[in-house]
Amino acid sequence: MAGTDPIPPTVEWRRGAVRIIDQRVLPGRLRFLDCADVDSLVDAIATLAVRGAPALGATGAFGVALGAHTLKTKRQVRAAAARIARARPTAVNLGWGAERALRAYEHDGRDAALVVAQAIAADDVRRNRLIGAHGLSLVPVGGAVLTHCNAGSLACVGYGTALGVVRAAFEGGRRPSVWVDETRPLLQGARLTMWECDRLGIDARLVVDGAAASLMQRGLVDLVIVGADRIAANGDVANKIGTYGLAVAARHHQIPFYVAAPASTLDLATATGDAIVVEERDPDEVTHAGTRRIAPVGAGAFNPAFDITPARLVTAIVTECGAARPPYRRSLPAHVRRAAEVVTPGP
Amino acid sequence: MAGTDPIPPTVEWRRGAVRIIDQRVLPGRLRFLDCADVDSLVDAIATLAVRGAPALGATGAFGVALGAHTLKTKRQVRAAAARIARARPTAVNLGWGAERALRAYEHDGRDAALVVAQAIAADDVRRNRLIGAHGLSLVPVGGAVLTHCNAGSLACVGYGTALGVVRAAFEGGRRPSVWVDETRPLLQGARLTMWECDRLGIDARLVVDGAAASLMQRGLVDLVIVGADRIAANGDVANKIGTYGLAVAARHHQIPFYVAAPASTLDLATATGDAIVVEERDPDEVTHAGTRRIAPVGAGAFNPAFDITPARLVTAIVTECGAARPPYRRSLPAHVRRAAEVVTPGP
Repeated sequence: MAGTDPIPPTVEWRRGAVRIIDQRVLPGRLRFLDCADVDSLVDAIATLAVRGAPALGATGAFGVALGAHTLKTKRQVRAAAARIARARPTAVNLGWGAERALRAYEHDGRDAALVVAQAIAADDVRRNRLIGAHGLSLVPVGGAVLTHCNAGSLACVGYGTALGVVRAAFEGGRRPSVWVDETRPLLQGARLTMWECDRLGIDARLVVDGAAASLMQRGLVDLVIVGADRIAANGDVANKIGTYGLAVAARHHQIPFYVAAPASTLDLATATGDAIVVEERDPDEVTHAGTRRIAPVGAGAFNPAFDITPARLVTAIVTECGAARPPYRRSLPAHVRRAAEVVTPGP
Repeated sequence: MAGTDPIPPTVEWRRGAVRIIDQRVLPGRLRFLDCADVDSLVDAIATLAVRGAPALGATGAFGVALGAHTLKTKRQVRAAAARIARARPTAVNLGWGAERALRAYEHDGRDAALVVAQAIAADDVRRNRLIGAHGLSLVPVGGAVLTHCNAGSLACVGYGTALGVVRAAFEGGRRPSVWVDETRPLLQGARLTMWECDRLGIDARLVVDGAAASLMQRGLVDLVIVGADRIAANGDVANKIGTYGLAVAARHHQIPFYVAAPASTLDLATATGDAIVVEERDPDEVTHAGTRRIAPVGAGAFNPAFDITPARLVTAIVTECGAARPPYRRSLPAHVRRAAEVVTPGP
């Protein structure tokens, strides 16, 4: 896909360096960071130049491959892998990707680490394309989709999950239009999803998060589709704060509410959403917009990063294995089982 | 109230000038603008140094009094009144206040215009205190209130409507705590409501608009209370964008949803909310946060200023005449009839 895709890969190997799209300067500029050593890559991860669970998994693996290519001793490479895994404390995918590449390096050397990283990246894009293929029929021809945050190419290595479904519908001639929630506090909808839609030529309009219910009331939304950070065995969905309110509003207006995510997001060991601990982030993200203070000095704020949408509000969960329907306790396990088979290694 | 109130009047007459709180620099600074001539007052209105329908009504009247005190001819005063009325195109209260003061001026001269302006200002505060007195029992002791936008002192001359109910509960020893929606795009919650709560010593915490439903889900909200820009005869409520989504979420969680507004907001000539035209504002408010661009250049945005909350989602409407309950077509007319009587003129 790389050559002709209007959105370059979020992370890739380029002439001995790890090239990432610098998401800190989007949507103003499309700038690439070529990280030629582990230090600069760790810095890029820590400062959110690259973010999104699937993207970080691949970045962790490419980072170890980079260490294997630039460092002299095994000990140095192991230390680099540990530093990469710790670059963002709560990003489990980072450690997962670094660990896989390190294992390959320990067994088979430098080139094996890179082969694993490339495979993780290619696998991500293939699974996302499958999610799109399974989900596109949920988008009626000419339908208006509402989405939240960024579950697009930039959150992954390529193509995207929730936005991948919209993209697949677009590429399939269904002419979708998209309402994009700006997604305070960090504005991933305004900054990243709007940028992706612009690159792809998909008709998109930005709204403040508070406008979503009113759009539904006016009959301007045919379906809602969002990504997920984690999905419990019963189908409860943890996703960016604001998702739950959309699900409640969608139900009130009898609009379908879909979640699109790779099967790796399904956490069958977690029975329900009650067991998911919601990360609370720095209140400064709420008391500020960018660097500008918007609340009085000393103002208290509450900044949960995610919310939990109960399964009963979720119409279907689309993975690379198809669209799972309620009851999810019965439909989701097959997705986990089949996930290993649906993507063949390659090319 | 003026002397000891922790929040100064939004607009008042001070030594031959109209003094307003400059809301453009809140919450960073409490700065007063002393407008000594009509030009500077018109500029203050046009640039949103003062905003909020009731506040603008009084400002329009004070503006004409200012013209009567500083201009030489009747013709000049009339022209000034017309300019003030046009300073914000959609603010009907501005023209209403200017017109009342101009009539007094034409009949009884310069001082009569000022007397009318002072009466309008005092009347606003008295009605708001009555709204608070009627509404405070809706707030349980130690209850958590969620509010949206700014329906506080700064939107009026003093005391506030929805936030006035919270203030009355606070002053009545009910120890309310407040969740404040930041209220994108213009952030009146973050900037103004948080500032007022801070001045009053009311426990308040700021959240992004998308977090409100999640707070309700966690059992952290006992009631929602908001102001209104206009209320139709059937009880449908036009208010700041984001209000409707709160009402839907409140109903989903069986949390009471209250509206507090002076009876002058009741528009019995408008049968239902369907007849209320919702103003669409500049998309730049959505593509920017303050002056910072947050969306790609050329990105489309949709920026309705208000939404319509249907009466069936409104638990009660609190005016200076008491709490109206459904069916509103029957309960609201008495509020309009009695509104003239509940407040006696004069100090």
